Amino acid sequence: ILAAFLLDSRINLSFLTMFFLLLQVDHFGFDENLTFQQRYLIADQHWKGDNGPILFYTGNEGDITWFCNNTGFMWDVAEELNAMLVFAEHRYYGESLPFGNESFSDSKHLNYLTSEQALADFAVLIEYLKTNIAGARYSPVIAIGGSYGGMLAAWFRMKYPHVVVGALAASAPIWQFGDLVPCGTYFSIVTNDFRKSGTGCADSIRNSWNAIDNLSLTGLQWLSNTFLLCSPLKSPQDAVLLKNWLSETWVNLAMVNYPYKADFLQPLPAWPIQEVCKFLKDPSLPDKLLLQNVFQAVNLYYNYSGVVSCLDMSETATKNLGQLGWYYQACTEMVMPMCTDGVNDMFEPQKWDFDALSEECYRLWGVRPRPSWILSMYGGKNISSHSNIIFSNGGLDPWSAGGVTQNISDSLVAIVIPDGAHHLDLRSRNPLDPKSVQQARATEICYMKQWIKEARHSH
Amino acid sequence: ILAAFLLDSRINLSFLTMFFLLLQVDHFGFDENLTFQQRYLIADQHWKGDNGPILFYTGNEGDITWFCNNTGFMWDVAEELNAMLVFAEHRYYGESLPFGNESFSDSKHLNYLTSEQALADFAVLIEYLKTNIAGARYSPVIAIGGSYGGMLAAWFRMKYPHVVVGALAASAPIWQFGDLVPCGTYFSIVTNDFRKSGTGCADSIRNSWNAIDNLSLTGLQWLSNTFLLCSPLKSPQDAVLLKNWLSETWVNLAMVNYPYKADFLQPLPAWPIQEVCKFLKDPSLPDKLLLQNVFQAVNLYYNYSGVVSCLDMSETATKNLGQLGWYYQACTEMVMPMCTDGVNDMFEPQKWDFDALSEECYRLWGVRPRPSWILSMYGGKNISSHSNIIFSNGGLDPWSAGGVTQNISDSLVAIVIPDGAHHLDLRSRNPLDPKSVQQARATEICYMKQWIKEARHSH
Repeated sequence: ILAAFLLDSRINLSFLTMFFLLLQVDHFGFDENLTFQQRYLIADQHWKGDNGPILFYTGNEGDITWFCNNTGFMWDVAEELNAMLVFAEHRYYGESLPFGNESFSDSKHLNYLTSEQALADFAVLIEYLKTNIAGARYSPVIAIGGSYGGMLAAWFRMKYPHVVVGALAASAPIWQFGDLVPCGTYFSIVTNDFRKSGTGCADSIRNSWNAIDNLSLTGLQWLSNTFLLCSPLKSPQDAVLLKNWLSETWVNLAMVNYPYKADFLQPLPAWPIQEVCKFLKDPSLPDKLLLQNVFQAVNLYYNYSGVVSCLDMSETATKNLGQLGWYYQACTEMVMPMCTDGVNDMFEPQKWDFDALSEECYRLWGVRPRPSWILSMYGGKNISSHSNIIFSNGGLDPWSAGGVTQNISDSLVAIVIPDGAHHLDLRSRNPLDPKSVQQARATEICYMKQWIKEARHSH
Repeated sequence: ILAAFLLDSRINLSFLTMFFLLLQVDHFGFDENLTFQQRYLIADQHWKGDNGPILFYTGNEGDITWFCNNTGFMWDVAEELNAMLVFAEHRYYGESLPFGNESFSDSKHLNYLTSEQALADFAVLIEYLKTNIAGARYSPVIAIGGSYGGMLAAWFRMKYPHVVVGALAASAPIWQFGDLVPCGTYFSIVTNDFRKSGTGCADSIRNSWNAIDNLSLTGLQWLSNTFLLCSPLKSPQDAVLLKNWLSETWVNLAMVNYPYKADFLQPLPAWPIQEVCKFLKDPSLPDKLLLQNVFQAVNLYYNYSGVVSCLDMSETATKNLGQLGWYYQACTEMVMPMCTDGVNDMFEPQKWDFDALSEECYRLWGVRPRPSWILSMYGGKNISSHSNIIFSNGGLDPWSAGGVTQNISDSLVAIVIPDGAHHLDLRSRNPLDPKSVQQARATEICYMKQWIKEARHSH
């Protein structure tokens, strides 16, 4: 199974071993004393024992082998720090399903899918490892994660500072909650990425919505054919699906706008938005010509390998992400307000509508979101009493809208990588890396060394 | 109802108002969206608005009005700091019952009785107060608690530093878990209290166990009469009940060995152990004479007011404590290893027997204790990265065995009150206060002022 994920030549998975640990399904209650098998991976070829450091990936919403494969930075650093690598899978994702195939069957089985339970899993796992691996008893552990995994890394350090000496939270939008940041920034960053990547590019996309609306009345068949859709559009209402799918595609492109050929959400060329924008130079074209160009653009995203025979609107990214689980989380704790205005961004105007979300969540899962809970739990912007967290953000990454991009204190530091997309810093070193990400990684390693040194002194 | 609790003339309960707030029964899950009414008390006669400080009592295992009445220190400080007082009742105690009369009916209903849920209640309550009380939006909040409430105050600051700027954890045995401290220290402190309070006192008690065993074979009726028991002993096995009840009495006396007449667990004279020891000068007396003296001693504890007609072995302390709830907590999270050896203490030797506890818990509640969870959650001895917590302990208090009695850092400070019993510092000022508790309170106030000042600057 692992071999299939071997996409990065710098990562030698033959050093990787897979384990499972029996954990409580409910850390916070004692009634149902159920357990489940949590998966984790260990790579220790550079570790020399003797309480050497452990880099711990706080797994997020997907198969942990995939994150392991896309976090080459940890493999690079392991060598430099003689560190052991541990990649812990998040409950309800990959193979760490508390109730097997029943895990997503209803709200009762989903009840233990929360960030608090996941952090408790990580804490118990680390204590288990330190107790059971010879030479690891006093190993300083550093949490590392990207995106939601970065949020978990930061929150892990905040809530369990006795377990991890510090955290690298890469592209972690811990402030994309409540009214901590404007709801529109996210999409305006996406728009800027397209605006800067080619003349007429963002405007072409902005004009495409109206073109689709026009054609949805008389040209459904034409739209289906032009966009090579696997399932043809059946009614004018289906145009909404097409527009949502396109919007998500542009957002995803902004996330993976890496400076070299890569395969994160999809196989893509270097600077994919620039490539996409080559098709979108003239926003003033008539509807059909404009949309043919839009197809060329999305086809680059979905079919760069050239082997796809039709485009499937139900899939916008790698199957390694657990969409079902994340939708549930977005319906409970992870309520991230988003909005567009069509002026500062290239999308159709859409207000943030909490009530609609709540109804949809109730319909889908029988649960209601509690938007303020995450703020009560993790402190919102009031986090200055914590320590040893690096928040890194890419200037091209829409998620930087909800990220910490300015230093909070001496030991809560922000690193901005102006030409970086979604957690570029967590990827393997690459000859095409911009200077800014090289510097970011150097700074990150410098802090890690400092945390390890401090931990040794205090022990 | 409140007037009945008016035992302390310095506390003017006419300034106290009772409120209820609707809270989630389960903060950590979204399946059952149930709510309950949490009770809290506010006294604001000294508060002047303008983001003045709030002193927040983190309620423990009992009726909050009783804690409110026995925490005169907060009332004294309120005047000095122009602070608002808030006393929050712990869920499952007093009137804050998540499922009313059904709350203790089975493990399903008890499932939400945990320290984590209680802390989340406090966090949500404080945010509610700061949002809804004019002039409190930026009020610095200080957590204050004694005993289990002190543990909650410390843990609250550790887990929710964005909610409270600091904590006074009085007589909080946060280390009476796992193998963090020896299991026998608790009872050796009790023994020392009796040893120091009168010649022959501890030895008389040590010899009493054998005397009871001897009489249990032939003199059950004599024992029942002599100890004025409401329910006579029926079989030799009942001698165990008598011995347990006596042991608990001695422990309680050690906790409330205050320097002045007081009524915490029972109405008692000043330095009650000295009074008790006046009956226990000669450990070498024959069994019956020795036990008659022991009766005089316990009768002082249970019948100082002189109105009790018989002694009830099922009650050892005030009814304001919620014994049922605490037994459940001791059967789940709050596993505190205790042991005696009969040499360093005056009790019958008894090893710590986790398996027996686990069986008993399963029989009583259908739950198994998880002794390591509290260490994973709150860090055990590895708490140095936190800040702004005062740990105060009385040298006479058996609970100091599991307390923090040495400074951990500049802002995690220990205060030891050599001649203090269980959280003496939280009681009202008294002309008979030893110098050590006066100094302790002055230091505590000094830290509180500093935290408030720092909070103002950072805001």
